[in-house]
Amino acid sequence: MSSTTYQSYCVATYRAYDDKADFQKKALGIAVGLTVGSWTDLPEARKAEMEKHLGRVVDVTVHEPDVGQPGERYADIQIAYPDANFSRDIPALLVTVFGKLSMDGKIKLIDLSFSDAFLAAFPGPRFGLQGVRDLLGVQNRPLLMSIFKSVIGHDLPALREQFYQQALGGVDLIKDDEILFENPLTPIERRVEVCMEAAAQAERETGQKLLYAANLTGPTFSLVDQAKRAIGAGANALLFNVLAYGFDALSELSRHPEVNVPIMAHPSLAGAFYPSTYHGISANVLLGKLMRLAGADLVLFPSPYGSVVMPLAENMAIKDALLTRQAADYSFGAVQEQPLSLATSFPVPSAGIHPGLVPWILRDFGHDVVVNAGGGVHGHPKGAAAGGRAFRQAIDACLAGAPLRAYAAEGHPELQAAIDAWGTRE
Amino acid sequence: MSSTTYQSYCVATYRAYDDKADFQKKALGIAVGLTVGSWTDLPEARKAEMEKHLGRVVDVTVHEPDVGQPGERYADIQIAYPDANFSRDIPALLVTVFGKLSMDGKIKLIDLSFSDAFLAAFPGPRFGLQGVRDLLGVQNRPLLMSIFKSVIGHDLPALREQFYQQALGGVDLIKDDEILFENPLTPIERRVEVCMEAAAQAERETGQKLLYAANLTGPTFSLVDQAKRAIGAGANALLFNVLAYGFDALSELSRHPEVNVPIMAHPSLAGAFYPSTYHGISANVLLGKLMRLAGADLVLFPSPYGSVVMPLAENMAIKDALLTRQAADYSFGAVQEQPLSLATSFPVPSAGIHPGLVPWILRDFGHDVVVNAGGGVHGHPKGAAAGGRAFRQAIDACLAGAPLRAYAAEGHPELQAAIDAWGTRE
Repeated sequence: MSSTTYQSYCVATYRAYDDKADFQKKALGIAVGLTVGSWTDLPEARKAEMEKHLGRVVDVTVHEPDVGQPGERYADIQIAYPDANFSRDIPALLVTVFGKLSMDGKIKLIDLSFSDAFLAAFPGPRFGLQGVRDLLGVQNRPLLMSIFKSVIGHDLPALREQFYQQALGGVDLIKDDEILFENPLTPIERRVEVCMEAAAQAERETGQKLLYAANLTGPTFSLVDQAKRAIGAGANALLFNVLAYGFDALSELSRHPEVNVPIMAHPSLAGAFYPSTYHGISANVLLGKLMRLAGADLVLFPSPYGSVVMPLAENMAIKDALLTRQAADYSFGAVQEQPLSLATSFPVPSAGIHPGLVPWILRDFGHDVVVNAGGGVHGHPKGAAAGGRAFRQAIDACLAGAPLRAYAAEGHPELQAAIDAWGTRE
Repeated sequence: MSSTTYQSYCVATYRAYDDKADFQKKALGIAVGLTVGSWTDLPEARKAEMEKHLGRVVDVTVHEPDVGQPGERYADIQIAYPDANFSRDIPALLVTVFGKLSMDGKIKLIDLSFSDAFLAAFPGPRFGLQGVRDLLGVQNRPLLMSIFKSVIGHDLPALREQFYQQALGGVDLIKDDEILFENPLTPIERRVEVCMEAAAQAERETGQKLLYAANLTGPTFSLVDQAKRAIGAGANALLFNVLAYGFDALSELSRHPEVNVPIMAHPSLAGAFYPSTYHGISANVLLGKLMRLAGADLVLFPSPYGSVVMPLAENMAIKDALLTRQAADYSFGAVQEQPLSLATSFPVPSAGIHPGLVPWILRDFGHDVVVNAGGGVHGHPKGAAAGGRAFRQAIDACLAGAPLRAYAAEGHPELQAAIDAWGTRE
């Protein structure tokens, strides 16, 4: 294929369930219907012009249930969509590959690959995993984040005290609760001021830097102004409920020259998309590939360990999407692995985490992970500062290759108290 | 309750599935967990301060399956969230009521009621159903809309000719395909110019006004500028893929003083939310209440008649949400029906519509509906203009109380040809 006729495609993979469907025919219907609209009835001369806009069936793999066994008939269908058909933004891509199709029976979007040409329009995470490490000056261990315990109805002194206690425990990041919006008690600029002041106070005790992700909320078209206000008041990170605003809002925020702090993507509303077998968008696409493409420096998602449970395999697929340095490129006719230029995003498995789970988290995620806890910090029998210390001790134990209980017994009373309260799972 | 202590609440209804759960306890967990965070361990003085932020369990109705019968155990849980907890925008409300909760097992958001105070922040549809009728000068019949057949890879003259043929048939509205983005062949300003010129040419033949909904796409923070460009070029309506950008983008567009044309909401990506039994957001909330609240003047959704099928009951629930003039107000302790100030939105059941289905559509929707067709116009044996005429004749037949076949036989050959091609379903 000469360079002038080279076509570039983004490739969507769907899982479609149907007892009887001719999946090959369905795949062809998608490839034509969601691109040029009709094909077989076009005159030959027109076909030559339209070919660069025609979707292609890359693969159809049908899974028949074994005779006499329970199970459903489904097919994994891969369709390549020419970049020529959509603008270089996530809404255009999603509307193309899953706009109408999402409503067409039992069908779930389970994977999405971006062409080089499409990727080239996205700078990706401005800081990314390495940039967040550099800001904190922490290169060689998992990071630790804590979440405010309760925030609604609290005033600035109460919030400051909560912040300070968390910071004293040695956490690297503190995030707002995602349900804290603009409010008269703790408006974002004042909140950022008092919390950053508490961070500075704690740093004098601990010698440790800290990022505070203030929740960026409010009207869509004012998000940049709101971010600038928070940053002007001293915010050194932002939390953002991406799915409530669409991926493009994150994409534009992350590339805005004045929104020059790490952005942490919250998975709020993600459960409306990913858990169904038959519908929606799988977690690896929603919370993995698209969050990274849109520029999230850190991505929260439900952990497989605690109260809000996502299966481990889905967690690992998100991790891979956030951390991989390779991507599939579909120059048509051949799939090639090639370097992915986007910076990596920090995975933050969340919910139900206590110090006794740290060995499991590190086994699953390695060291490039943020250990994130709310109740596991604030619920510590000796308070939030002790809760943070217990987590840091658990991380140190893992890095030293020591079993948690043995390490706790060797002069780490905060970890011991945490284990006494919640146990371990090594 | 005195006026000073009067609390106002938005109320979410969930359907939660679980074989064994104590649903009363689960409901209380939601009401506390998604508002003040903790309650029973608060000192009494603190409780008095925090009470205005505390969520309330309005109702829990458990459905136990009959013994020995198939069926699942579930509960409908109603929780009231104090307005004091969130800002007056849809992202804040959705993140509050379904942000984290969406990921917490088998749970679907099936209804949402807005307090008067929350509603007061939303002007609603600027034109609404009546405003669209007034622009077109059509008061006493269902409207007719047609959709471009295929658009990708077509140039301006080809698009103009498609537009002109549709307009000649007497349609009231023509919409862009939702997958037509900014592209070198038919950029929005040029597209609007040639299509509005074709509309004027057709109007000289038919004497009929027409709204052309141009697809508003591109970067989120530039949507207002893009809308102004389209309107500057003559666009008298806009199509918008709301769910790809979030409800707030629609809400801000619809209230922007310079975006002074009707906005048509496309349901693109809605299938990622509503079809699952166990997860997501039901169609009446997603495509009904929230679209109207955000200011959609017309709302497209999958019809129960054609190729992309939604059950009739869900369609009727969307219709009710778009057209009702009453709303439930939850002044706490008493639910009252009261007038809803928002203008109504035009329902547009879409997909798989041909003239023979018009009697069914009007039976289900009454006259306040837009009959919307793509293939049913363009696929007419005598072309798109004849396709439009066949639909108008079918509508006239229904208004005259005449059976379609009899009306077709009385000198309405376009309707006759449509019936010959696709049949009727009266």
